[in-house]
Amino acid sequence: MPQPIAFVTRISPEEEQVWLAALRQAMPGERIESLSSLTREEREAVEIAIVANPDPADLKQLPSLVWIHGLWAGVERLVSELEDFDVPIVRLVDPQMSHTMAEAVLAWTYYLFRDMPAYARQQRDRLWAQLDYKRADETTVGLLGLGALGTAAAGRLKEGSFRVAGWSRTPKVLEGVESFSGEDGLNALLETSDILVCLVPLTPQTRGLIDAGRLARLKPGASLINFARGPIVVTADLLASLDSGHLAHAVLDVFDQEPLPAESPLWDRPDITILPHISAPTDRRTASAIVAGNIAIYRETGALPPTVDRARGY
Amino acid sequence: MPQPIAFVTRISPEEEQVWLAALRQAMPGERIESLSSLTREEREAVEIAIVANPDPADLKQLPSLVWIHGLWAGVERLVSELEDFDVPIVRLVDPQMSHTMAEAVLAWTYYLFRDMPAYARQQRDRLWAQLDYKRADETTVGLLGLGALGTAAAGRLKEGSFRVAGWSRTPKVLEGVESFSGEDGLNALLETSDILVCLVPLTPQTRGLIDAGRLARLKPGASLINFARGPIVVTADLLASLDSGHLAHAVLDVFDQEPLPAESPLWDRPDITILPHISAPTDRRTASAIVAGNIAIYRETGALPPTVDRARGY
Repeated sequence: MPQPIAFVTRISPEEEQVWLAALRQAMPGERIESLSSLTREEREAVEIAIVANPDPADLKQLPSLVWIHGLWAGVERLVSELEDFDVPIVRLVDPQMSHTMAEAVLAWTYYLFRDMPAYARQQRDRLWAQLDYKRADETTVGLLGLGALGTAAAGRLKEGSFRVAGWSRTPKVLEGVESFSGEDGLNALLETSDILVCLVPLTPQTRGLIDAGRLARLKPGASLINFARGPIVVTADLLASLDSGHLAHAVLDVFDQEPLPAESPLWDRPDITILPHISAPTDRRTASAIVAGNIAIYRETGALPPTVDRARGY
Repeated sequence: MPQPIAFVTRISPEEEQVWLAALRQAMPGERIESLSSLTREEREAVEIAIVANPDPADLKQLPSLVWIHGLWAGVERLVSELEDFDVPIVRLVDPQMSHTMAEAVLAWTYYLFRDMPAYARQQRDRLWAQLDYKRADETTVGLLGLGALGTAAAGRLKEGSFRVAGWSRTPKVLEGVESFSGEDGLNALLETSDILVCLVPLTPQTRGLIDAGRLARLKPGASLINFARGPIVVTADLLASLDSGHLAHAVLDVFDQEPLPAESPLWDRPDITILPHISAPTDRRTASAIVAGNIAIYRETGALPPTVDRARGY
């Protein structure tokens, strides 16, 4: 049997056990152990760490470490915390996660498009009133980000006959999607969007990307969905845009601080729908199978899957 | 120019004018007038009435009437009010309406499936808690009714990877849909459904169809969407099933009395989502075009489109 694989994490002990069970089931030929279960000699031999919000000090106990496999798609925290620790990072790229995220994009687009927040307010007021119905093919959904998640979301939105536009850092061509890139392209995307969906990774370039100036470029009455990371949207600017009536509604799944503190003023706003970071939960079964596949290739050939470009941030 | 077409309705004068404009635009070669705008001689010559909730007494002022074209898909009220008035009725069969209804079925299925009511309650309580995610392919949506609406809805649900089952009066085969019919089939559908969607027309056979016994056959924790007609579900039995905790949530777009009276106890329930009959609003443009096509064929050939079977009720 090869050297053990270390599972390095700061998640709760209960969640750690559930993950260990899933990973072991996916890799019956490997020995996967929490760091604390490994002897000093075993730690010195570990080549692979599977991580979920790891303490960098823990990783530094593994002198032979060759690579790190994350269990999440977003790695901005890992990249920032491991700045001085030069081991290749592999992030989770799980088609099931793209499927679930695309489902969430369509589900909450329908939530906004079919006026569910307004009908909920009417129910509270015992008010029976039919709002005007606008067809999906008269409504443009703008996707900020056209990677795996944005591409999957575009496909689902097109099934629903929405007009789909998208923006990416580098130019991309997607059938049936009006694609933009660059600074001018971002403005063009904002100006055409009835519903803007954030799906970009958090990087130095995307931090604060959606600020007052960018929000002002959205159509009056537009709505925003943030399924990416909280700091991509400047919260104070978002609230000002909602207060002015320019933006109609925001669906937020991610926040500057998570869990969102109980004293946050966001909770009470009827024009914000708050979700506890559930747009695309990791599926332990499919994630474990993907990690298992990557590790099997490494064991056989020594080759790593594509690793995170730390300068780019994903 | 042929005899005028009478527009016979009890809708508001404002809505009547909007409809008249849409119908006239779709039929520039026809003269379409409100009943009150026609002289006695003109009334006696009218062969075609376009109706939207007409007063039967008004229709009886048209002695040469050959057929009636409704502007809505549901005709149960028309059939019941015109019981002693033996003129063929054509109901609106609009593919755009099937599209919009299928969209509503998928949108409010996602609303339930992605736990939007529960997350709204958590927001009210400032509670950050991630609910377990169950995949769409582990969730069965049961469609009560597999006509044009049910078939369109099944297609959209399959795009979302849901398991789809359906029930119809007469046996039907639909690819990728587990199809049931008859009394035993109805029980089988109920027992397999996580989300039950009512799409059957209101007829003497479907009135009160979903009663205490049928609700009890649903899985514990199942939910109900009624996009058909209020009286298909026995309201008292629905409330009892919600109170007992057997049924988790109901989305109701239709009611025994519409508008739902302000004093109804339904408004205040957190386990009922109330919509003001908006699942599939008639699209005036496409509806007018379909009526125009049917009338053009009649003018040219004397042939009527398929008419309502009054005994069957649709």
